[in-house]
Amino acid sequence: MIIRHNENYKWDNIPILAYKEDTTCFKNITRQVLLDGAPELPCQLRYFEIAPGGYSTLEQHEHVHFVVIFRGGGKALLGKEVYDVQEKDVIEIPSFAWHQFQATFDSPLGFLCLVNIERDRPRLPTEEDLNLLRQDSDIAAFIKS
Amino acid sequence: MIIRHNENYKWDNIPILAYKEDTTCFKNITRQVLLDGAPELPCQLRYFEIAPGGYSTLEQHEHVHFVVIFRGGGKALLGKEVYDVQEKDVIEIPSFAWHQFQATFDSPLGFLCLVNIERDRPRLPTEEDLNLLRQDSDIAAFIKS
Repeated sequence: MIIRHNENYKWDNIPILAYKEDTTCFKNITRQVLLDGAPELPCQLRYFEIAPGGYSTLEQHEHVHFVVIFRGGGKALLGKEVYDVQEKDVIEIPSFAWHQFQATFDSPLGFLCLVNIERDRPRLPTEEDLNLLRQDSDIAAFIKS
Repeated sequence: MIIRHNENYKWDNIPILAYKEDTTCFKNITRQVLLDGAPELPCQLRYFEIAPGGYSTLEQHEHVHFVVIFRGGGKALLGKEVYDVQEKDVIEIPSFAWHQFQATFDSPLGFLCLVNIERDRPRLPTEEDLNLLRQDSDIAAFIKS
């Protein structure tokens, strides 16, 4: 019933997994699945940690993310804006919002991320999507794909 | 899209609410609703904080809780056992498990708690429930009702 935090954002008996298996559009990021759904609450709680200089995949999807910044800070593209994010900020990423997290400081950026167990697969940006995103100079300077 | 953490476990534009309106079986506990559900993720993320010496209601219900200890530590009855809990521990409270959190140290115990938006109402223990719970001496010494 309890997943014990051990130390340094690792939990007892929770393996540290590859962030993704099916794409290489990310850097220096790990995944731990803390809770994998219950019949009455079919959601998955994951902890992602991005090492300095790393980033998550730039993507969009129908399913919604609830995110809590759990360690350190960094920057995130959320929809049409790049935000500074810091520990304890809470984020809702709506359906089909483009998003990417980056560990822009000299310390890790860790975040809890809640999703439905049943969810659609993320979609990577096409060249056309990237051209549209890059019309905003802040986004152009930020995104990695 | 971002709920900014302001300071001291308070967030911008998030009111600090009474823990409950319909019972008095609790002490020194506040509630903040950080995320109140999305069509694609009909869950509510709350932050509860218990001041030293305080406790949440001893209760059970069908709906499941996902909990992340977010500040400090304390003790919790979870099902049939009293556990020490500390920051970053992750807890799944199954359907109908009796549970109660207590801030047993000189500092606040704060936790994130995820539930379905649509959920059944908590049930308080009857005298018979309490007698059954008190058959365990650790639980008998712990619970407040």
